[in-house]
Amino acid sequence: MAGMNALPTHFPPAVYAHRIKRAETLCTQRRLGGVVVGTGPELAFLTGAWTQSHERLTALVISPLGDPTLIAPATDAADLAFVEQLGITLHTWRDGQDPYRIVAAHLGGGTVALGKSLTADHVLRLMEVVEDTVLIDDAVPDLFMVKDTDEIAQLEFAGAAIDRVHEQVPDLLRPGRTENEVAADLAELIKREHASVDFIIVGSGPNGANPHHDHSDRVLEDGDPVVVDIGGAVGAGYHSDCTRTYVAGTVQDPSFQRAYDVLRTAQDTAVHTARPGMTAGELDAVARSIINHAGYGVNFSHRLGHGIGLALHEAPFIVEGSDTVLEESMVFSIEPGIYLPGQWGMRIEDIVVLEAGGARRLNNAARQLRYGLQS
Amino acid sequence: MAGMNALPTHFPPAVYAHRIKRAETLCTQRRLGGVVVGTGPELAFLTGAWTQSHERLTALVISPLGDPTLIAPATDAADLAFVEQLGITLHTWRDGQDPYRIVAAHLGGGTVALGKSLTADHVLRLMEVVEDTVLIDDAVPDLFMVKDTDEIAQLEFAGAAIDRVHEQVPDLLRPGRTENEVAADLAELIKREHASVDFIIVGSGPNGANPHHDHSDRVLEDGDPVVVDIGGAVGAGYHSDCTRTYVAGTVQDPSFQRAYDVLRTAQDTAVHTARPGMTAGELDAVARSIINHAGYGVNFSHRLGHGIGLALHEAPFIVEGSDTVLEESMVFSIEPGIYLPGQWGMRIEDIVVLEAGGARRLNNAARQLRYGLQS
Repeated sequence: MAGMNALPTHFPPAVYAHRIKRAETLCTQRRLGGVVVGTGPELAFLTGAWTQSHERLTALVISPLGDPTLIAPATDAADLAFVEQLGITLHTWRDGQDPYRIVAAHLGGGTVALGKSLTADHVLRLMEVVEDTVLIDDAVPDLFMVKDTDEIAQLEFAGAAIDRVHEQVPDLLRPGRTENEVAADLAELIKREHASVDFIIVGSGPNGANPHHDHSDRVLEDGDPVVVDIGGAVGAGYHSDCTRTYVAGTVQDPSFQRAYDVLRTAQDTAVHTARPGMTAGELDAVARSIINHAGYGVNFSHRLGHGIGLALHEAPFIVEGSDTVLEESMVFSIEPGIYLPGQWGMRIEDIVVLEAGGARRLNNAARQLRYGLQS
Repeated sequence: MAGMNALPTHFPPAVYAHRIKRAETLCTQRRLGGVVVGTGPELAFLTGAWTQSHERLTALVISPLGDPTLIAPATDAADLAFVEQLGITLHTWRDGQDPYRIVAAHLGGGTVALGKSLTADHVLRLMEVVEDTVLIDDAVPDLFMVKDTDEIAQLEFAGAAIDRVHEQVPDLLRPGRTENEVAADLAELIKREHASVDFIIVGSGPNGANPHHDHSDRVLEDGDPVVVDIGGAVGAGYHSDCTRTYVAGTVQDPSFQRAYDVLRTAQDTAVHTARPGMTAGELDAVARSIINHAGYGVNFSHRLGHGIGLALHEAPFIVEGSDTVLEESMVFSIEPGIYLPGQWGMRIEDIVVLEAGGARRLNNAARQLRYGLQS
């Protein structure tokens, strides 16, 4: 845990200024009128601000004309004054004024790229005042998908922190305890790693077959498979997301172990096959074909993975049919699963960073099937 | 606190079925192809579900053709199966499929009304597959703005609960304590009312001049004005939102009391003037003209109020220039404020329900300037 407190919650102003300059350059290269992002991970990436504005528009406008401007409600002026240090003009508006026209006045002509987290109330009003719009991930996907060294350092830290939590999970899985009790312990362990708790899944027995189950009052029984998928945010807001599958107690079902071996081979093979230049769809197919071949294809009911950064789930999505080309310094999950409704589920998930030579895992907690304590 | 646990977290299925039927009727009357709402307050109003889906589309489609359908990721199927009891078809999709085409297949022809909380990633994809779109609040504003008796009962309950918290605030405002300490006590008091904590503002001295300040390590000084704005959600998710202005300790600045008298007159007059048939802009002007006349116009830097329900801030917005006509059974805040940057702030906020004869307050905590304990 040494150095824990050294993880910065904000980067130096020059880091944000550089990101904004890069966005301006991309606008010019792709002949966009500009980029408009609302509050959320995209704004945090470009400014460090996690402010929320809801029905009052807060939007950062970056255009090829320069002069990046944050348009924000006057009620938030004091909290956002710091953006001037990043070379951003703060332009506040008062209730009764039309903030959308202010946005339009800061844009160049042509298609405008909209941030993903802008809500429909803002999107439809913006569309009334700009020529044409495109989704930011379609126009400048490389702005967010390819991580810089500051970001990779934070994601490494997040991965190591959640690994330390997973190493303690076998101690928690005593038959007779409930999923909720295990989840409460996990929340404490995640907080001890100086991480905020993003989500906790403890899916025991048949609950493991629901990939989005969280946790319940179900009592762990001896021999229950238990899917534990946990994540938290550290530093500037970078997430972890790691799944391991355990067995409560000691009884073991040989058919479960056989399926688990298939899953582990699929996960390992995908990690070892990932290379810059292949598409996300090709990588998904690597794991899927192994699971299909073993007869569990219909039970692998979701995509292989998702990008991760200031958003828990973001591009690139590692999904069947995707032609997104994987590049160096992308960071994403590789998380095949097998789910037998009414019986059990299993999933192995690691975050990886793609390097020139292949994928490097940011999660390294033991991947063999591990057993909880006896009751 | 008697009867607290009787407040339902869900209404009977017939309530949701009735709301959906009403939405279908409005679609027919206004010649819409349908309504598409994402996760959030609008989905909770129509189904009781507070599910979140993020980058995977979850959308309820209501069309004049009937057969309301919830389109949701297969990963959430187990959690959402209950909607079948409300007469809604659950249509799940798997990663790699295109959920937007499924939405389109359930719509009639013509303009489609989009829910406010859909994010840009979903909005822009939906626009590729439908003829034309309009914001739900522009197309069928009456669907959400006019509250039914079940909703008003929950909002009354929420208002009374936060009133009980406000009655205890003077005991907390001892000079020498920090805003953070006061806020921690308030969080406990709100939870004791079986409410989730939505937000807590403790703005002492100059911090009160920032309407969106939350709380800080500033130490309350004798004679500090303190703006306390708090809210929590109860039952099915209905919010409270109530502001009172206090003075820590006992010292009193006569100029502050004079401004407060103006503020209180403005708030009272707006409450007593509100009537069905007047516009939101006219109501804003009632309070604003009183504050303007006293010379504080420039210091009342925000709108008079906002609707409240399953969203903390929703239509109608009581804002300068709005031509939204106020109707019976609308529920909204009346919250004028006066802010002197660097010095102090003051605000009085009540939630009111509009009835045939005028506005009825749902907050009744004392509105005179109240004093905290001496140090």
